[in-house]
Amino acid sequence: MKRILLAPDSFKGTMSSEDICQIMKGVIHRLSPDTETVSIPVADGGEGSVECFLHADGGIKKYVSVQGVYGERMKSFYGLLADKRTAVIEMAACAGLPLAEGRLNPERTTTYGVGELLLEAARQGAKRIILGLGGSATNDGGCGAAAAAGVRFFDGLGKSFVPTGGTLGEIARIDVSGLDSALYGVKIIAMCDIDNPMYGAKGAAYVFGPQKGADEEAVRRLDSGLRRLNDVMRRDLGTDYSKLPGGAAAGAMGAGMAAFFSAKLQMGIDTVLDTVGFDRLLQRSQLVFTGEGKIDSQSLGGKVVIGVSRRAKMQNVPVISVVGAIGEGFEGAYAEGVTSIFSINREPMDFSLSRHHSKENLAVAMENIMRLVLRLYS
Amino acid sequence: MKRILLAPDSFKGTMSSEDICQIMKGVIHRLSPDTETVSIPVADGGEGSVECFLHADGGIKKYVSVQGVYGERMKSFYGLLADKRTAVIEMAACAGLPLAEGRLNPERTTTYGVGELLLEAARQGAKRIILGLGGSATNDGGCGAAAAAGVRFFDGLGKSFVPTGGTLGEIARIDVSGLDSALYGVKIIAMCDIDNPMYGAKGAAYVFGPQKGADEEAVRRLDSGLRRLNDVMRRDLGTDYSKLPGGAAAGAMGAGMAAFFSAKLQMGIDTVLDTVGFDRLLQRSQLVFTGEGKIDSQSLGGKVVIGVSRRAKMQNVPVISVVGAIGEGFEGAYAEGVTSIFSINREPMDFSLSRHHSKENLAVAMENIMRLVLRLYS
Repeated sequence: MKRILLAPDSFKGTMSSEDICQIMKGVIHRLSPDTETVSIPVADGGEGSVECFLHADGGIKKYVSVQGVYGERMKSFYGLLADKRTAVIEMAACAGLPLAEGRLNPERTTTYGVGELLLEAARQGAKRIILGLGGSATNDGGCGAAAAAGVRFFDGLGKSFVPTGGTLGEIARIDVSGLDSALYGVKIIAMCDIDNPMYGAKGAAYVFGPQKGADEEAVRRLDSGLRRLNDVMRRDLGTDYSKLPGGAAAGAMGAGMAAFFSAKLQMGIDTVLDTVGFDRLLQRSQLVFTGEGKIDSQSLGGKVVIGVSRRAKMQNVPVISVVGAIGEGFEGAYAEGVTSIFSINREPMDFSLSRHHSKENLAVAMENIMRLVLRLYS
Repeated sequence: MKRILLAPDSFKGTMSSEDICQIMKGVIHRLSPDTETVSIPVADGGEGSVECFLHADGGIKKYVSVQGVYGERMKSFYGLLADKRTAVIEMAACAGLPLAEGRLNPERTTTYGVGELLLEAARQGAKRIILGLGGSATNDGGCGAAAAAGVRFFDGLGKSFVPTGGTLGEIARIDVSGLDSALYGVKIIAMCDIDNPMYGAKGAAYVFGPQKGADEEAVRRLDSGLRRLNDVMRRDLGTDYSKLPGGAAAGAMGAGMAAFFSAKLQMGIDTVLDTVGFDRLLQRSQLVFTGEGKIDSQSLGGKVVIGVSRRAKMQNVPVISVVGAIGEGFEGAYAEGVTSIFSINREPMDFSLSRHHSKENLAVAMENIMRLVLRLYS
């Protein structure tokens, strides 16, 4: 085999996508030294996304001082990819849940620093910015980020302010005319892995508010603030992203990115595959390995394995999915382009024990799969 | 693929070899209706061996009234294969452990009925008899069977008797001249899966006596009886099978079969593979499936998977082993001809739970293996 592509999701709790690529690559090269492998560890928009892109595509990590989740100054970062025109930002790098640990309060937290990162990347020449929306501590609809980029928010008295989740209801007017010119013509792609809308029963506040520290009362206030935000955006910006799938991402920053930055919301896996030129890589590849912690009917909704397989199917390249568990409904994967699914479980063993053997189990599964592949492929 | 051979061992406690063949065959035919499969469920000489051969090779089951394990009349059986010249007998069919349940006593039990079955098969025209030595309740060195076939045993007073485990020490003289002429020219192959010798620390009494109900004292007596038997056989028959590997099988019936019937002791798997003409079948097959409950360094000693793989290797046919568990030392199987090993465990789960899912898990594993095979094979 000339070339094999490796594009696995992480196995949550046991192995990162990079760990898995490393193990797969090791086995393949040992059994078939002449086979080229291309590792594409997959980012989902949350913590680690920047590293992921840098690993897959090359580039450098840039450090910037920005506002943290409570407005304090902090050192954050973004990635500038090898083409020097594409930047990758993970919003969690300055507005992530771990940064608010011990003081969770989605009514007070801000995405202001994310706007600073966007601006800095644009000023450094990025014409395309990939923004990972994942693991946020905020619920400000992206207003903080917009404010940092020059959008102005006014209250009923005509006083300018930077809204947070708790003060969205006070927005009386929005003026986008001051948006920093560095962002003109910059294409922003916001990566998200959910399709929930901005507000309502399946919206940001109700579904994700509680894990960010909002009690029942606070959830109601946050949701009503987001409704207000959309009302004003509709009037002053002429946009209505209240139904946009993924609008809920990162405390409704999904909707805010669309409204304030004309960002395109996209599934994480497609963003990654586009960025690394997956379709082009497929052209001279004979096999793709992907994988995830558990494959079942739920995971067939457009996540990593299916995202990878659909593209491979278009070019008739076989896909082997190596997984931690084969759950109910896995058969649906075949129609999406998955050739075969193999679990890494060597023997009957409860997860509390087997989780400590994930890496060696993956290596054993890979060895047996590759031995068969190499034997049959000609 | 034109033809695939299926030759799995049983998964002890969850699936018989026949169950496994059935599931494998079902999946293969569903995915590739034009592929011929040949099922070779593997007998190990114990209970089920006759069914196994009949299933693999065709033929009929014959019922015969013989002496049971305590001399009572009982209905037993043997198999006459399609060639009408080969019979298969499992000694457990009239001298097996389950038949003595509740009254285990290897000093009293007899293999007399086995001799009757041998004789009957020979009288019906069998020129080749495969005798499964497994699961016995006896320790009579095969003297009972020999007596049934016409061999005479005399005590110190010159009185003829049928020795059991407890009376082996009383044998003063053996006369084989009365062996029934129906057995002349009949080739007997005794299948066993152990290589322990007739007596001594690793012999029949010490190693297998306790599970047949012998206490420490009885074990000593049984062992000394077997020594005595060999002494007399050496003098009167001119044979010494005290060191014969497998002589311990079925309460030293292994040694007795060699001495009284000139039987050839052979590993079960080789007997089966020879009987079904495995080497010839391999010639136009593209793939072999085998398998066992657990593959590890222990199972590499000549059991089913390795027995099958060694032959396939000679003809360069790939072998896929599907197993319940991949234990330590499995890598040794590759050198014996195993291409790949896949475990049926779909997800992390303790055996106490997963054992109830063995059949569906096997089907899922087979589906994924076959999808890959069919995709890559051309």
